[in-house]
Amino acid sequence: MKAEIISVGTELLLGQIVDTNAAYLSARLPEIGVSLYHRSTVGDNRDRLKEAINKALLRSQIVFTIGGIGPTPDDITKESVAEVLGQELVVHQETVKKLRDFFTKISVPMTDNNLKQALVPAKGRVLENPMGTAPGSVFFTNDNKYVIVMPGPPKEFIFMYENAILPFLKEIYPEKLVFESRVLRIFGMGESTVAHELGSLLDGENPTVAPYVGDGDVTLRICARAENKINAVEKIDNLQEKIKRILGNAIYSFENKSLAQTVVDICRIKNIKIAFAESCTGGLVSKKITDVAGSSEIFIGGAVTYSNEMKVKMLGVSEKKLVDFGAVSKEVAIEMAVGMKILTNSHISLSITGIAGPDGGTEKKPIGLVYMAVAYKDKIKDFKFTFNGDRDGIRLRASLNAIDIVRKVVLEEF
Amino acid sequence: MKAEIISVGTELLLGQIVDTNAAYLSARLPEIGVSLYHRSTVGDNRDRLKEAINKALLRSQIVFTIGGIGPTPDDITKESVAEVLGQELVVHQETVKKLRDFFTKISVPMTDNNLKQALVPAKGRVLENPMGTAPGSVFFTNDNKYVIVMPGPPKEFIFMYENAILPFLKEIYPEKLVFESRVLRIFGMGESTVAHELGSLLDGENPTVAPYVGDGDVTLRICARAENKINAVEKIDNLQEKIKRILGNAIYSFENKSLAQTVVDICRIKNIKIAFAESCTGGLVSKKITDVAGSSEIFIGGAVTYSNEMKVKMLGVSEKKLVDFGAVSKEVAIEMAVGMKILTNSHISLSITGIAGPDGGTEKKPIGLVYMAVAYKDKIKDFKFTFNGDRDGIRLRASLNAIDIVRKVVLEEF
Repeated sequence: MKAEIISVGTELLLGQIVDTNAAYLSARLPEIGVSLYHRSTVGDNRDRLKEAINKALLRSQIVFTIGGIGPTPDDITKESVAEVLGQELVVHQETVKKLRDFFTKISVPMTDNNLKQALVPAKGRVLENPMGTAPGSVFFTNDNKYVIVMPGPPKEFIFMYENAILPFLKEIYPEKLVFESRVLRIFGMGESTVAHELGSLLDGENPTVAPYVGDGDVTLRICARAENKINAVEKIDNLQEKIKRILGNAIYSFENKSLAQTVVDICRIKNIKIAFAESCTGGLVSKKITDVAGSSEIFIGGAVTYSNEMKVKMLGVSEKKLVDFGAVSKEVAIEMAVGMKILTNSHISLSITGIAGPDGGTEKKPIGLVYMAVAYKDKIKDFKFTFNGDRDGIRLRASLNAIDIVRKVVLEEF
Repeated sequence: MKAEIISVGTELLLGQIVDTNAAYLSARLPEIGVSLYHRSTVGDNRDRLKEAINKALLRSQIVFTIGGIGPTPDDITKESVAEVLGQELVVHQETVKKLRDFFTKISVPMTDNNLKQALVPAKGRVLENPMGTAPGSVFFTNDNKYVIVMPGPPKEFIFMYENAILPFLKEIYPEKLVFESRVLRIFGMGESTVAHELGSLLDGENPTVAPYVGDGDVTLRICARAENKINAVEKIDNLQEKIKRILGNAIYSFENKSLAQTVVDICRIKNIKIAFAESCTGGLVSKKITDVAGSSEIFIGGAVTYSNEMKVKMLGVSEKKLVDFGAVSKEVAIEMAVGMKILTNSHISLSITGIAGPDGGTEKKPIGLVYMAVAYKDKIKDFKFTFNGDRDGIRLRASLNAIDIVRKVVLEEF
């Protein structure tokens, strides 16, 4: 089955946003055996959009449109699809009700233009959008083709793909083979190292395995097809065993969980309470841990001691150490971790102090230099890193390494 | 002048990489008055690529291709362009020499396939690529159109745009008009409300103005063209005045700065030190402030008091208030802000306590309920919000509102 993608939005053609949705969808379609040969982007212009839809329908059985289903006058996707197909749009009462409830809840009067979002194909299907206000839809053409209209905001887009589109595609897909996939996540190795280590394992055709650069980590997606689910899963299990023997505990999740989620989960199981004292990461580590629902069971608290004064006042770091060694030093990192452990009475307290840049680097202490210490039981371990990259990159890598240190301490010491 | 972009590469269609080049080029072309109406992506397939080039040349005067000019057999862009135009490729001796020098330098024998990179149009121009091995090229068509062939690696791509393509475009561009644009950022109003308030101002043709959904805020891009820069800027200024009268201080930046950057900047100017005591946002506010380089001058520190115990220990919140009113209450928010102000001796301390979900909501205190308090001088103000959305959304909105409260306090009270 052939598909193509049309991304809609002048903001894309003006380069104001990067089209991550199209990349996401492109990566997911091959997993279920759908081939993609074309992708295009058009602005919020009805004639050009209609031309693109027309052309795509000549070549492909499924056409995805992304974006242009919001409340403003430049949102024209559904209207354009309906015109191309010669079909009607009708008002979806459930969506109208949902919109009214939404505006009542946020105590904002609903302007009429919002009702546009409740228009859906007369001949087709409505796709719920619990992450936003505008539903998606599938238009059925007279010659057994489909135009699938999806929202632009990435969160809404991904949720809808997973929960509405994927089941729909499996339903219409004539092939009897079953496709299964699994995502492994790896920390502490770059993509090219992972590729090098796995060598010819990456060349397999069934299952396939492909490494992708994640947000500071590497993900490895294994996809298998077979006559039934059990056999497909077995193929994945077998390959996973081989990968595990090579990459060891650099693999932190076999279920596509984030590093923070993984740490929260193992701390919950072992009933471990943790705390962080952050300087250069400025709250990012605490933020990542508290991104995880339920983290309040294991996360006691964090101190963002950005100034020296706060390191002394909140954590009891000695002024002498700050003067003798500087705030960015092994000695101060250790006192921060110990101080945080005493303050919070946690099982594990980790500290981070470093130079994220763009200013503040010296020859002896360059930008990217980060010290960490972890205090647990009656032990202390300290770490020294030199990270590459800009401020955001240094802070991201520091925070992930901090969380990974906690993961290893929990696994090895508790 | 009309242009379009064709991105070439099966790795794009498989979603293995996100097409940041196309977004970059899309953002740059309007600056010099080149209009972009189409963007498309094709795989490493000669027929489909030739079809795409043909179609693009029917619609546009300039066609950019990105990618597919390396040494491997699936690099077919130049060959395909030459076939479409019925033109020859010739060997570029300078490039051959550069390639030989390069391989000598890295002490690797040069395989013959590398010479493919030295093929350039017989009728056209060679674009140097000091960041890589494959040069770019401009094909001249018989009807005064141009196919500009660019490399895929983003570093090479951007360097070539800046240093070779931009001068070339200015050389061939007949129009004498100047284009200017400016981005305003707005907080506390949704996209549809902004659109509604601005009404017919959005319909203007010169300047144009368009609202976009940002990350929790709304951006407004104004673009104007005129005979010279002064007149274009004047047009933007005039429209901006009208917008300002309607949206007031919901506009927080006229320079496309983030909310956190805006707050850091005004605090630096007024020499105001700030601190945050966070519960449900778990460090996100501190993280956003410390994302900004130079924030250490104004940010003293943060307390992430996720547990009740930490609210008592770090901030001196009274246990009685926690029992009587609960952690998520106006009373506790006020004690957190006051405690943080005393601990840090900051000019402004802001506290946040709420229920981010997905668990922990009750009928009286639903998910999304967030209290904040801000302590400054000898004053206290408190705020109650009910945010919609999932955990991430609630935390994001809470953190942005917290930063916006600080912005308003600094503007109005210092």
